[in-house]
Amino acid sequence: MRSERVFDVSSEYVPTGIPGVDKILAGKGLPRNHTVLVCGGPGSGKTTFAIQYLYVGATQHNESGVYVTLDEEPNDIRANMLKYGWDLQALEAEHKLVFINVSPVRIAPTERTGLIQIGMKEFRLIKLLEVIRSGVEEVDAKRVVVDPITIFTLQYPDEVERIHAMRDLLRDLRKTDCTNLLISELRGTGWEREHQFEEYLTQGVILLRTFLRDSRLTRVFQVEKMRGLAIDNQPRPYEISMRGIEVYPNATVYK
Amino acid sequence: MRSERVFDVSSEYVPTGIPGVDKILAGKGLPRNHTVLVCGGPGSGKTTFAIQYLYVGATQHNESGVYVTLDEEPNDIRANMLKYGWDLQALEAEHKLVFINVSPVRIAPTERTGLIQIGMKEFRLIKLLEVIRSGVEEVDAKRVVVDPITIFTLQYPDEVERIHAMRDLLRDLRKTDCTNLLISELRGTGWEREHQFEEYLTQGVILLRTFLRDSRLTRVFQVEKMRGLAIDNQPRPYEISMRGIEVYPNATVYK
Amino acid sequence: MRSERVFDVSSEYVPTGIPGVDKILAGKGLPRNHTVLVCGGPGSGKTTFAIQYLYVGATQHNESGVYVTLDEEPNDIRANMLKYGWDLQALEAEHKLVFINVSPVRIAPTERTGLIQIGMKEFRLIKLLEVIRSGVEEVDAKRVVVDPITIFTLQYPDEVERIHAMRDLLRDLRKTDCTNLLISELRGTGWEREHQFEEYLTQGVILLRTFLRDSRLTRVFQVEKMRGLAIDNQPRPYEISMRGIEVYPNATVYK
Amino acid sequence: MRSERVFDVSSEYVPTGIPGVDKILAGKGLPRNHTVLVCGGPGSGKTTFAIQYLYVGATQHNESGVYVTLDEEPNDIRANMLKYGWDLQALEAEHKLVFINVSPVRIAPTERTGLIQIGMKEFRLIKLLEVIRSGVEEVDAKRVVVDPITIFTLQYPDEVERIHAMRDLLRDLRKTDCTNLLISELRGTGWEREHQFEEYLTQGVILLRTFLRDSRLTRVFQVEKMRGLAIDNQPRPYEISMRGIEVYPNATVYK
Amino acid sequence: MRSERVFDVSSEYVPTGIPGVDKILAGKGLPRNHTVLVCGGPGSGKTTFAIQYLYVGATQHNESGVYVTLDEEPNDIRANMLKYGWDLQALEAEHKLVFINVSPVRIAPTERTGLIQIGMKEFRLIKLLEVIRSGVEEVDAKRVVVDPITIFTLQYPDEVERIHAMRDLLRDLRKTDCTNLLISELRGTGWEREHQFEEYLTQGVILLRTFLRDSRLTRVFQVEKMRGLAIDNQPRPYEISMRGIEVYPNATVYK
Amino acid sequence: MRSERVFDVSSEYVPTGIPGVDKILAGKGLPRNHTVLVCGGPGSGKTTFAIQYLYVGATQHNESGVYVTLDEEPNDIRANMLKYGWDLQALEAEHKLVFINVSPVRIAPTERTGLIQIGMKEFRLIKLLEVIRSGVEEVDAKRVVVDPITIFTLQYPDEVERIHAMRDLLRDLRKTDCTNLLISELRGTGWEREHQFEEYLTQGVILLRTFLRDSRLTRVFQVEKMRGLAIDNQPRPYEISMRGIEVYPNATVYK
Repeated sequence: MRSERVFDVSSEYVPTGIPGVDKILAGKGLPRNHTVLVCGGPGSGKTTFAIQYLYVGATQHNESGVYVTLDEEPNDIRANMLKYGWDLQALEAEHKLVFINVSPVRIAPTERTGLIQIGMKEFRLIKLLEVIRSGVEEVDAKRVVVDPITIFTLQYPDEVERIHAMRDLLRDLRKTDCTNLLISELRGTGWEREHQFEEYLTQGVILLRTFLRDSRLTRVFQVEKMRGLAIDNQPRPYEISMRGIEVYPNATVYK
Repeated sequence: MRSERVFDVSSEYVPTGIPGVDKILAGKGLPRNHTVLVCGGPGSGKTTFAIQYLYVGATQHNESGVYVTLDEEPNDIRANMLKYGWDLQALEAEHKLVFINVSPVRIAPTERTGLIQIGMKEFRLIKLLEVIRSGVEEVDAKRVVVDPITIFTLQYPDEVERIHAMRDLLRDLRKTDCTNLLISELRGTGWEREHQFEEYLTQGVILLRTFLRDSRLTRVFQVEKMRGLAIDNQPRPYEISMRGIEVYPNATVYK
Repeated sequence: MRSERVFDVSSEYVPTGIPGVDKILAGKGLPRNHTVLVCGGPGSGKTTFAIQYLYVGATQHNESGVYVTLDEEPNDIRANMLKYGWDLQALEAEHKLVFINVSPVRIAPTERTGLIQIGMKEFRLIKLLEVIRSGVEEVDAKRVVVDPITIFTLQYPDEVERIHAMRDLLRDLRKTDCTNLLISELRGTGWEREHQFEEYLTQGVILLRTFLRDSRLTRVFQVEKMRGLAIDNQPRPYEISMRGIEVYPNATVYK
Repeated sequence: MRSERVFDVSSEYVPTGIPGVDKILAGKGLPRNHTVLVCGGPGSGKTTFAIQYLYVGATQHNESGVYVTLDEEPNDIRANMLKYGWDLQALEAEHKLVFINVSPVRIAPTERTGLIQIGMKEFRLIKLLEVIRSGVEEVDAKRVVVDPITIFTLQYPDEVERIHAMRDLLRDLRKTDCTNLLISELRGTGWEREHQFEEYLTQGVILLRTFLRDSRLTRVFQVEKMRGLAIDNQPRPYEISMRGIEVYPNATVYK
Repeated sequence: MRSERVFDVSSEYVPTGIPGVDKILAGKGLPRNHTVLVCGGPGSGKTTFAIQYLYVGATQHNESGVYVTLDEEPNDIRANMLKYGWDLQALEAEHKLVFINVSPVRIAPTERTGLIQIGMKEFRLIKLLEVIRSGVEEVDAKRVVVDPITIFTLQYPDEVERIHAMRDLLRDLRKTDCTNLLISELRGTGWEREHQFEEYLTQGVILLRTFLRDSRLTRVFQVEKMRGLAIDNQPRPYEISMRGIEVYPNATVYK
Repeated sequence: MRSERVFDVSSEYVPTGIPGVDKILAGKGLPRNHTVLVCGGPGSGKTTFAIQYLYVGATQHNESGVYVTLDEEPNDIRANMLKYGWDLQALEAEHKLVFINVSPVRIAPTERTGLIQIGMKEFRLIKLLEVIRSGVEEVDAKRVVVDPITIFTLQYPDEVERIHAMRDLLRDLRKTDCTNLLISELRGTGWEREHQFEEYLTQGVILLRTFLRDSRLTRVFQVEKMRGLAIDNQPRPYEISMRGIEVYPNATVYK
């Protein structure tokens, strides 16, 4: 895939490598060690965005990645991403990527090939942190994705507890020295909406949404927030093409 | 009925055979083994869409099907579908289709002609999976429909339990090697809406809706999401005609 | 009153006889044995529609009817309907119509002239089914109206129980061999709305609503759903005139 | 005040005598013995409308009236209505009107001059019916007003109980042989709204509302429902003038 | 400050003295002994309006006033109102005004200079009435303000209790022979809204709101209701200037 | 950074020093000792606004500040603010600024360099007041920021308790003699909204929001309320530039 410039791993910023995105991020990328919330509706390309981030990191910037999946089965993700020309299995073999599977398919322990697995119901904060750390150690990761974060927060019905749990997670992600994406599910479809509590806690928030413009559905990318960086917060069109996500930082979205 | 091209059963994709739909699905069809949510309001043609999918599978692609019905009585479905020229009873006789009846009409066990029946109140996940497997075995099915999935999920008042139950169902449907449709009831009528939690869990989401355009109600088909396939996500007009559902992939819907 | 063509009682379809309606119902009428939900706001003509359906059945198609009333007192209905020229008492005398009164006026048993009465608080499913069957037997009915169904469903605060109760009612109505209308109260006035759960369970749904068009309130009739029949689902204007409900199937409603 | 034609007390209809209203009521008035809900926001003239109805009844049609007040103190109502030139005290002296005071001012029993009083907290159905009957007997009333009905229904937190209580009230009001207005408080200000459950139970519903048209607030009168009468259901402008409420049945309200 | 005409204390009406307001109140003022709700959003000038009402009463009409404050500290109010040229401390010295402080600043009893103080948590109806009466006696008040009433009503979580408490308060305020303002906090910002229950209980309702007109925020004054007076209920622009609140009764507010 | 005029510490007003803001505040600044709520969505610049306020106070007006952080880690804030050219660590060394860290990173007590730290779960009113006082003493502060106040109020699920807690906090902040900002999180994105209860309790309210104007997102600054000062309450555009927040008091925001 096309990537932006090659960066030195000790840089202050972590380029996503997703076309158009780093330009919106002041031409630099995500501030190192930050955790960014990526919110979108079904079919908005959240998983593609997250995988692309890890793929570029592994192939272009020598940064390994950990993908914690709660929704999709790793085999499905591998198959789906092949269409973009991304051979994830190859990366796993090179220890540039590891999947932590918290999705419903339970494979017997003997079949463990580059996969770490735990059951859904034991999925609480402690467990999540353990497996993240374990995965980070295994491939010396610099990039982590948790997809989606919703299942995790839903385990805490009490609002204050949920905020504490999220803050603890963010604090521990900080200690990993990785730059992280937490994938989140948007509740509704309208332009106006209620903010989800995690938007106030993470260091950044990216929105992937779809709106009707004239008579066409248009995909709209927007960096709502990014601490430590003067970003372009305007909504920009994006596409999911044969090469993955592509954002158009110079184009406008009319409403 | 009119169908698309004939496919080899080992293909990666399962054509729906519903006019216009496979073109929107990148010209291929549903990715094999995927479970897709079909959401629509009352009278939107959800059941017709689902039966059409099984009918084409049985008559054109040598793929048998299982229809789990929670709403309509199988006799009603048979009668209703005759109007489209689809003789379901013939398919049942050829073991190309089997109905699993979880709808209110209870027929005495001796009358069991191609029908499997269970009572509503015992309708929990375990039972649902058993009868699906039993039906799949009975006709060596490759296509499964559950219509509607709402009753099933309503049995779990706790949100987290509901998500687990749905994920377990999806995981087990995976093991059947079938390509499946789960029919779901949309809550409201407006263009903007809140997403239902199942939209985030299934591999695909298709919407069948109705909107006022100028002064006419227009039926609108939309593939909101389809993992593993670069689909056309634009809203397209569709009709329920004498031959079933027909989508117009090249037409626009003005709002 | 004006009626459509005269039908043979063994026909697949049951003409409503309400001007304009059967044309919208593919020129035929309601599919025999179906139960259709008729939803409308206060003053929309729901009761008039229901009585007109029974009146035409009795006077034109030799089909007796049962009217289960939960809101209005039978004497009031008789008085109100005289204005349209419909002599209901005459039909009751001919055993072509019977009222089941579950409304608040309690008349002493000795005054029982063509009236069956039960108290409101004992009004649960079992009781409802009993009195329906009893009324159907009494006049050998082919048409049944329950007006409104809301009180019945309200008795079940739990959502799943309510769905089961409604499904049981629909299943038992099926066994009566009658073609039935369940009258329901719409919650709000706007064009966009949330669907009521019964709309997904009945075989058909008819909406009677009122909207502001230009500066006039216009009455709008719409068949939202009708299984087994390719209906015209467009909104059409209707009026409540001196002769009852009259729908205009060829006219448009501008929004 | 100006009144319509003089009617014979045994007529089928009870003219309100409020200018413009009876014309909207098919030129006749309220069907005798009916109970009509009058809904409006604060300042819409609900109380004025109700008093005008009783005043005309007493002075023009020889029909005495009972006014059950839950909000306003009878002395206040007397003072307020003097401005329209209506001397209520004179009517009370002639036993053409009686106030039942369920409002907060408690006057010692010895001061009882044409006033019946009960405490708020004992205000349940039984009590309400007793005092209504007592008042009706006292002046041989033909018209009854309960203002507002909201306090009464609020005493029943359970929805089904509330409906039963309202139905019992309506049933007992029927037995009084009076023609009644129940005053109700609208919850919101918009054109679109959710119906209140009482609108489905009473025999008629009148709305008194206020909307912004161009840049002016316009008062809008509308008969939403009236069983047994072919009314004009269009919204019509009205005013609260020096002579009370005045509706303009031939004028339009633009939105 | 500028005031309207000087009135005789035994008049039927109590002029507010706020420029433009009395003209809207039929040129007279508030009906004596009435309690009027003044609702507005934050920054709408509710407190200024209330103080202006008491200030004019004290300086122009020889009517002393009581100000029950739940939000602002009396010292703050004094300081803030100096900007309009209103020396409240002087009025307090002349016993023309007294503050009842139920706000958070607790001053030791020895510092009691023209101040009556009670703690927040003991603030229930009985206590409120006591301190109002005590204040009214102390300065022989004719005008009372409670700012805001929200804290008082919030103490009653049960809706029926809240209505009773408010009615009791209104009844007791009646006995004081004063003309009163209860300040209330509007929940939302839109033109359309849900009515607060107190709007139905008080004898009058005044709204102070802010809307976007063209591209400017405009302050809008509106008398929604005033029993016993034929008021102008149109929305009128107002300003908060160096001299306090000023309403423009002849101007229009375009929406 | 650019600042307004230099003020004498004993002035009645505290200039924010944020370009454009003091002009909107009648050319003066925040009334001394007032507590002002600053509400905004994620990415609106709330933290930047708050730091800028303390930075200007320390460097231009000889007023030290305390920053109570519940969200961001002090090290992050230091790093982020360096981009604007604000060296916070230098100010801390000069005892012109102190951070109170209630955010998730727990640093061992021995690492305490200019930092005061407490755990999240012990964060109740008492604790908050203690640490504020402690910080105010430590640097003889005149400006305090609590960012955000939301976590604090969420600890009180009961609405009345929450109001009391907030009032107690405001009362105690009063005693510190500081001029304070409480940062708050707006719930939704639309122009119309529901007010948060704190808006009614603080002496001022500032809104930082983002709206779509034409096809661009525009940042909108608005002083909704400021007691004791005749402010310009019009919405004004603002930007987050390389120099921090900059408001344009003479420009208009079109909607």
